[in-house]
Amino acid sequence: MPSRENHDRMANAIRFLSADAVEKANSGHPGLPMGAADIATVLYTRFMKHDPHHPHWPDRDRFVLSAGHGSMLLYSLLYLTGYEDITIDEIKNFRQLGSKTAGHPEYGHAAGIETTTGPLGQGLGNAVGMALAERIMNARFGDALVDHHTYVLAGDGCLMEGISQEAIAFAGHLRLSKLIVFFDDNGISIDGPVSLSDSTDQCARFEASGWHVQRCDGHDPDAIAGAIETAKASGKPSMIACKTTIGFGAPTRAGSNKAHGSPLGPEEIAGARKALGWEAKPFVVPSEILDMWRLAGLRSAKDRKEWERRLASAEAELRSEFERRMRGELPGGFEAAMADYKKRLAKERPKLATRKSSENALEVINAAVPETIGGSADLTGSNNTKTSQTKPITPTDYSGRYVYYGIREHGMAAAMNGMALHGGLVPYGGTFLVFTDYCRPSIRLAALMGQRVIYVMTHDSIGLGEDGPTHQPVEQLAALRAIPNLRVYRPADAVEAAECWQLALEDTSGPSVLALTRQNLPAVRTEHVEENLCAFGAYELETASDDAAVTIFATGSEVEIALAARQQLQSNGHPTRVVSVPSMERFARQSPEYRAAMIGNAPVKVAIEAGVRQAWDALIGQDGIFVGMHGFGASGKYEELYKHFGITAEATAAAAEKRLHGRG
Amino acid sequence: MPSRENHDRMANAIRFLSADAVEKANSGHPGLPMGAADIATVLYTRFMKHDPHHPHWPDRDRFVLSAGHGSMLLYSLLYLTGYEDITIDEIKNFRQLGSKTAGHPEYGHAAGIETTTGPLGQGLGNAVGMALAERIMNARFGDALVDHHTYVLAGDGCLMEGISQEAIAFAGHLRLSKLIVFFDDNGISIDGPVSLSDSTDQCARFEASGWHVQRCDGHDPDAIAGAIETAKASGKPSMIACKTTIGFGAPTRAGSNKAHGSPLGPEEIAGARKALGWEAKPFVVPSEILDMWRLAGLRSAKDRKEWERRLASAEAELRSEFERRMRGELPGGFEAAMADYKKRLAKERPKLATRKSSENALEVINAAVPETIGGSADLTGSNNTKTSQTKPITPTDYSGRYVYYGIREHGMAAAMNGMALHGGLVPYGGTFLVFTDYCRPSIRLAALMGQRVIYVMTHDSIGLGEDGPTHQPVEQLAALRAIPNLRVYRPADAVEAAECWQLALEDTSGPSVLALTRQNLPAVRTEHVEENLCAFGAYELETASDDAAVTIFATGSEVEIALAARQQLQSNGHPTRVVSVPSMERFARQSPEYRAAMIGNAPVKVAIEAGVRQAWDALIGQDGIFVGMHGFGASGKYEELYKHFGITAEATAAAAEKRLHGRG
Repeated sequence: MPSRENHDRMANAIRFLSADAVEKANSGHPGLPMGAADIATVLYTRFMKHDPHHPHWPDRDRFVLSAGHGSMLLYSLLYLTGYEDITIDEIKNFRQLGSKTAGHPEYGHAAGIETTTGPLGQGLGNAVGMALAERIMNARFGDALVDHHTYVLAGDGCLMEGISQEAIAFAGHLRLSKLIVFFDDNGISIDGPVSLSDSTDQCARFEASGWHVQRCDGHDPDAIAGAIETAKASGKPSMIACKTTIGFGAPTRAGSNKAHGSPLGPEEIAGARKALGWEAKPFVVPSEILDMWRLAGLRSAKDRKEWERRLASAEAELRSEFERRMRGELPGGFEAAMADYKKRLAKERPKLATRKSSENALEVINAAVPETIGGSADLTGSNNTKTSQTKPITPTDYSGRYVYYGIREHGMAAAMNGMALHGGLVPYGGTFLVFTDYCRPSIRLAALMGQRVIYVMTHDSIGLGEDGPTHQPVEQLAALRAIPNLRVYRPADAVEAAECWQLALEDTSGPSVLALTRQNLPAVRTEHVEENLCAFGAYELETASDDAAVTIFATGSEVEIALAARQQLQSNGHPTRVVSVPSMERFARQSPEYRAAMIGNAPVKVAIEAGVRQAWDALIGQDGIFVGMHGFGASGKYEELYKHFGITAEATAAAAEKRLHGRG
Repeated sequence: MPSRENHDRMANAIRFLSADAVEKANSGHPGLPMGAADIATVLYTRFMKHDPHHPHWPDRDRFVLSAGHGSMLLYSLLYLTGYEDITIDEIKNFRQLGSKTAGHPEYGHAAGIETTTGPLGQGLGNAVGMALAERIMNARFGDALVDHHTYVLAGDGCLMEGISQEAIAFAGHLRLSKLIVFFDDNGISIDGPVSLSDSTDQCARFEASGWHVQRCDGHDPDAIAGAIETAKASGKPSMIACKTTIGFGAPTRAGSNKAHGSPLGPEEIAGARKALGWEAKPFVVPSEILDMWRLAGLRSAKDRKEWERRLASAEAELRSEFERRMRGELPGGFEAAMADYKKRLAKERPKLATRKSSENALEVINAAVPETIGGSADLTGSNNTKTSQTKPITPTDYSGRYVYYGIREHGMAAAMNGMALHGGLVPYGGTFLVFTDYCRPSIRLAALMGQRVIYVMTHDSIGLGEDGPTHQPVEQLAALRAIPNLRVYRPADAVEAAECWQLALEDTSGPSVLALTRQNLPAVRTEHVEENLCAFGAYELETASDDAAVTIFATGSEVEIALAARQQLQSNGHPTRVVSVPSMERFARQSPEYRAAMIGNAPVKVAIEAGVRQAWDALIGQDGIFVGMHGFGASGKYEELYKHFGITAEATAAAAEKRLHGRG
């Protein structure tokens, strides 16, 4: 534990690394690192269980800088405590192209960055997922292997974002007592004092959701340390409101929004140097101070070694299961189980809603893959996300595998990111496809971070019927397909649903959306089940009787319509092929030859999808015929809606024939 | 005021209309209308100021059913109190295609439906906007013309959604004392008891944000009435937690999630009839009960007449201003002011970021159009949304025209919907374009309802630079273009920015997004400013020197690049035209001839946009060359990022030449 004097010098090292880096970049946020330096110093010198030389140690504490704009705080800590990735040169290259020290912390750029933050409130939501993952893993592997804390630094912005309420209420309900949130209570936002736009008593708000709450002076190291001790013993998730001065030390800008989001300028920095007694040049940390920091970085090395010993001496099966899970590898029996299941489906040819097919696939998956953690945003019976293996997780028992997320799509998606980032678990969660809009910022971050998170999105079109346009996705498929590194799957039947699930689980490089129907669909894929044809993204489901005059592309529930349209066209003498397109993203990654062969040379190309056209021009071209939605849906029986909006086999065949006859 | 016995009979009329309509539709939510019938009966028989025969009376109280799945509650009230749109036949046609009684309340289907609800939490957010609009209009037009309440019925789902926190905190901060929220505290959600997923003390939570809070028995009419009286006198926004039984009266399902979202079934309904002493057949309301309800519907007719008298006797200018605003018409001087401004720009040719051009346009607009209400989600200085005319609105002074929304993009967008729906105001609000993801559900509803809401979305590409991929929109333009009835504008310079603003303001049929740069752009449109060329969505900015070999389409900041590429290509002997595409939606609505002429016959078509390709195939075709983003952005100086991602004039010209030479 550093003396008060040494604490101050160590905190000042953070302050000046941060202010100087922002100054050099001529871009960034000096205010938060300067204001929160004392909190961070206390945390990293007295509490954080981590080992900079083994940064991926599974039982390390997680620190999440939810207020990601204060990234220099984190980079300073990583540099000072001795993480190899963050050198002083990286600090000097803050916010430059190719550096590890991006404007906001980017997961994957450097060890010690536990999640990508910047969009406010997301880090807090991730941290709740991490803290939940810790408890779930603890219930499975015991205190000897899993027993760590999740710390968060959140600002006013994080707490004003709606997602924070979802995260807070969810964590409070589940009593995630190893989650400790520092609220950097500096009273300043970009526009000025927080009082311009908010009067919320944040402490009372957290208490209302079952949190343990303390206030303290965020510049008093012993007060901060005392609060952390108390928080750790509280038995509840804990929030410590630390009263801080943004831009602490800056002579004229401290405590004002002028310290928030732009370089302080040379005069102000010189003034701060004087006020805080910091004589070192930019990017120089006096060796005695750096030594103290590096020593602090070694604090948990012994703990880590003991942990390694415990792992080594653990029962062999437990150990290998723990290691397998942390590597993110699926268990051995998975592929065979899926192959058997698909063979069964090919025989049984069930007529089911794909949400039900998804549930059936999950029964097989959850039996074979113990690390899946299911859940739904209060639509369990509609999303069909719960299977026989998944006992609920409750505030007093974390040994289950199912999470009642409540009506919190955004909080759910952010928590799933946190669970995936924590490691050891594969989270999947459901809501209606239209409500991907509610959790889109978290889906985007899963894609940006390349996390294996699976969204079970049912009620995927006007096919949901009576709930009407507010619940009927129309533009959501296009909007999701637009997100880089996200796979959107829309299976057409039970076999495709199983194949898409398998692809989603086997893909460790990014998240997947499964878009599933409410209404029943016939089996359309009854052959070649020994191969995962969905892996190609698009494949020929039915060939034409001769050189194709028409190719019909379709997804999900509209494949049935495509097949019926093909029958009509063929009986009218127009050879027609049908291509099922379960995933445009996968199709885009195939070879040019495969793509050309699938798109084919039929003079008439048609796409059928009960959504907007936007993404389809890439397959059918500007001149292709699109049978789908051209605006919002309506409330009514789904069969009537399909007719009303002209998404039928008859309309499809008629449009194709008209075009073949040169009249459309 | 009805006797207790009559109250019960009136409330039972709601219960059985609702249960029977759900039963006949074989779809819907009986539980909420049966549980909240007493609250609704008290509100509509003793408090609501409205006139079913003049449903658009501007000074009516607004009632928002935020828990929109309980739509039969609202339809029952409208039928019973005598709104012409909702006949008994409409009730019988609940949830059928073409009926006014859609699965969720749809704005525009019938008078008395004040907003479209269903996506949870949105109604509450809208109501906050309505209540704020009331105060702003009151500050301008006085108590004589504007003095009404906004009532909301919200359920557990609304309050679990994050948007509710943004709405609650914002309303509490602004002390919107004429906003009264009934929390239908039935303890049940779709998955089961709320205790499965939540332990929040909602009363304490509202209190933490400065609300007046009461609890009452939601089946005791006098207790409800007393609470409303107290709430009206509280001087704060008020929340009344009404303990209710979901599906009140249903013998086995009341108080359980089985009463929530599916028909009760004939036995259960028969049991409820017996339990509540309701002998009338389905869809029959005994005449003495209907008479009482119709009489209740006449309660405010006198108030309305007196209001008409006050309006008639108001000072002529005030009256005509009030009427103009409520009609949603822009003032006379607007067009001329914009024409003058554009002429000035054509001369001055300013080199500015379009966010700054937008601010300059707003200076002209806000001077000419007093009903604009600006704001930003804590990015005022970045979004450039504040002009000299827009004094802040504060908790003690609503006479301003600028709202500090705080870090609440979703709450802001929902409140803007409410302001637009209220009438008399044109709301615009800003954040970063990437954070349209945070408010997408509200943007979608503005589009679905056809409301004039304007989103000022700055920092519209990698051009924002150092903040990096979390802040750089890549897929957002495509994702927004996918939303039906939303106009997305991306102006290329100050003239286009002015034109896009004018189009957004003149368009009363839907919302508009303005995507604006952080970085400076040269003037590219210096001619033909007497016409609003942006109205065509796409127009030829530069013609080719001869029959065009290349056409380059571009938007916003990439138009500059297109023009530079054209120069290179032309000097290499390749006649090249440049088409500016400020709005794909407007372009899609032009005549086939105009569209064909703009797309043209150049053998090589190129699109440049610092976003994903998805929407562009419709213009350039599958074979077109796309110069843009193929994944997420990066942190760095924007000039370097443009080079890094190959979005340059050189790369564009090179790609086009390669294609012209048959090599690409």
